Amino acid sequence: MSASVGIVTTEYAKFDVELQLESGRLLGPLTLAYETYGTLNSDRSNVILVTHAWTGDAHAAGKNTPEDRKPGWWDDMIGPGKVLDTDRYFVLCSNVIGSCKGSTGPASLNPRTGKSYNLSFPVVMVRDMVRAQKLLFDRLGIDSLVTVIGGSMGAMQAVEWGLLYPDMVRSVIPIAGTGRTSPMAIALNALARQAIFSDPMWKKGNYKPEHPPADGLALARAVGHISFLSDTSMHLKFGRRFSARDGMFDFFGQFEIERYLAYNGASFVDRFDTNSFLYLAKALDLYDVSWNFDSMEEALDNLQCPSLWFAFTSDWLYAPSQTEEVVKVLQKLDKPVAYHLIDSDYGHDSFLVEPDKFTPLIVEFLDKLK
Amino acid sequence: MSASVGIVTTEYAKFDVELQLESGRLLGPLTLAYETYGTLNSDRSNVILVTHAWTGDAHAAGKNTPEDRKPGWWDDMIGPGKVLDTDRYFVLCSNVIGSCKGSTGPASLNPRTGKSYNLSFPVVMVRDMVRAQKLLFDRLGIDSLVTVIGGSMGAMQAVEWGLLYPDMVRSVIPIAGTGRTSPMAIALNALARQAIFSDPMWKKGNYKPEHPPADGLALARAVGHISFLSDTSMHLKFGRRFSARDGMFDFFGQFEIERYLAYNGASFVDRFDTNSFLYLAKALDLYDVSWNFDSMEEALDNLQCPSLWFAFTSDWLYAPSQTEEVVKVLQKLDKPVAYHLIDSDYGHDSFLVEPDKFTPLIVEFLDKLK
Repeated sequence: MSASVGIVTTEYAKFDVELQLESGRLLGPLTLAYETYGTLNSDRSNVILVTHAWTGDAHAAGKNTPEDRKPGWWDDMIGPGKVLDTDRYFVLCSNVIGSCKGSTGPASLNPRTGKSYNLSFPVVMVRDMVRAQKLLFDRLGIDSLVTVIGGSMGAMQAVEWGLLYPDMVRSVIPIAGTGRTSPMAIALNALARQAIFSDPMWKKGNYKPEHPPADGLALARAVGHISFLSDTSMHLKFGRRFSARDGMFDFFGQFEIERYLAYNGASFVDRFDTNSFLYLAKALDLYDVSWNFDSMEEALDNLQCPSLWFAFTSDWLYAPSQTEEVVKVLQKLDKPVAYHLIDSDYGHDSFLVEPDKFTPLIVEFLDKLK
Repeated sequence: MSASVGIVTTEYAKFDVELQLESGRLLGPLTLAYETYGTLNSDRSNVILVTHAWTGDAHAAGKNTPEDRKPGWWDDMIGPGKVLDTDRYFVLCSNVIGSCKGSTGPASLNPRTGKSYNLSFPVVMVRDMVRAQKLLFDRLGIDSLVTVIGGSMGAMQAVEWGLLYPDMVRSVIPIAGTGRTSPMAIALNALARQAIFSDPMWKKGNYKPEHPPADGLALARAVGHISFLSDTSMHLKFGRRFSARDGMFDFFGQFEIERYLAYNGASFVDRFDTNSFLYLAKALDLYDVSWNFDSMEEALDNLQCPSLWFAFTSDWLYAPSQTEEVVKVLQKLDKPVAYHLIDSDYGHDSFLVEPDKFTPLIVEFLDKLK
């Protein structure tokens, strides 16, 4: 797993379009940030789309500069000889609209006003993200995808790809996904929202980029962080250890888990835009595979290709039962579907932390595709 | 279950003592708020102590005035013919120190300064709460308890009673408890803390009672509220229903679960003191039955009486495995122990919501006590 795609450059594709969103509103012009790994073959038939999660970005593998401390977020998965083998496949990862990592989002300039959108940015759904990505493949002249693979919000995009473009998508691999965001997940996002809304620095979204609502966003991130972990993973990493710096009976004394969450939340503020965080949370909350269909069954009947689903035993955010709900409908519809419940202690984040536990099943699945 | 203890008056016992706390600090003089239901028999042998959870109080049953909209928090359990039968037992419930419901806590006046303690209040542990309660029984001339029964933080107090006063306690009934607060629970409390600390109205605990950090406390309460529920109970109550008042694509549009959490958090501000909330969160975080013992085994070896334990299938805050950890140690030590895992969808709050599911087992247990 040590081979790397090396140094990669993020590309930016600009589209002079007005994309009609699920809300009825129009969004455009659009920019999409993306990276590619491997080589497009002559008949453009070796393309894999990797879709990212909430705070992810286009930088899925390799390094952008030799000095980068860490490689892209799914570097374990993408590279020569890895499961998404760049010696065979042309792998593309694109940042979603609504984000702040190079694609058009609330922090982008609204060309009509010359100011950043902030809360005048329209609410986007996962389906809108996928429609925007489709523009990119049209531009690149690609009309066939070996697979669309992603975890969490990436799993939602993979499914939407299968529903919207059945002629183009030859398989989908949704990992740690859900058929519809649960009230628990919505409730956790509601906490995150309230934390930001309550921060006077937020100013109804009109903060200056250099003065973000740092406390609110840090707390919002900590909510997310907890929901991505599991009690077991916290036990393994922190247990009940009290911070060595603090007295146990100090009012402000912290357990290590607490110090870690605070540190992590604070560092997140430097790398993510608050309004983007909120818009993507909204997209997650609104996600329901049966959106604009009469039922989950009717929606999933549009999925023509084989699908491979993974859930993780310790994931309590998008619990295995949520993937199983979808898989059961697909089975009932006699669709080609495979499902694996992976035993992992790392909660929702297992798809990032322990890819070794499921990658052999992906290799096998991809090899069987015609 | 309709019989009521009727109108009850909260009593306040004042103790001119200096209670030595686990931290080494002294606290005193002390006031304890308490209520009693039923009649103390002539040999003072029919006493049951009910211990309350985090934001509970001494008012466990009946009404304080005929106009009260709701009875005490465990009225389903306490009354003539109920499981804690006031025709047989003399039931006492006392508000813990650190709280704001009549017992000495951070909002109380420090007699040395004439001002409220605020953050000069000492950190208290559950063991300290129990030692304070013991003063009350000494005052009342009661040296024997049929049982100590409570849920959540109440379960912790029940166990501590058994460990500290084995000659006095004839049984304990810890419900939805834990042997030691998990890193997940600590992490959730850390969110609640940060929400309060980040509210400028908190002023490091020196807010005026009439100007509390309302946003921070409301958010903190919402964190707790989520952790007391389960995904299933949220599905049953709210599903994915969007608030009828809001447009689905409004940036500030809310799902019903979200509106409920906000409403509930805001109303909590009127009935609970912020600093008390923080001190009790700290007591919960610090709770470990093996505190000041070498091991959980050594600690639990002090429990001489029969114990009856309940956990709930959908409780993810103090998950059944946490009760089971304690029960296994007691079994290994050959202690008289009974454990029931109750199938309930109501998460940690099941002990309040569905008492019917476990009360018959308590009746049976109490009847078998000599």
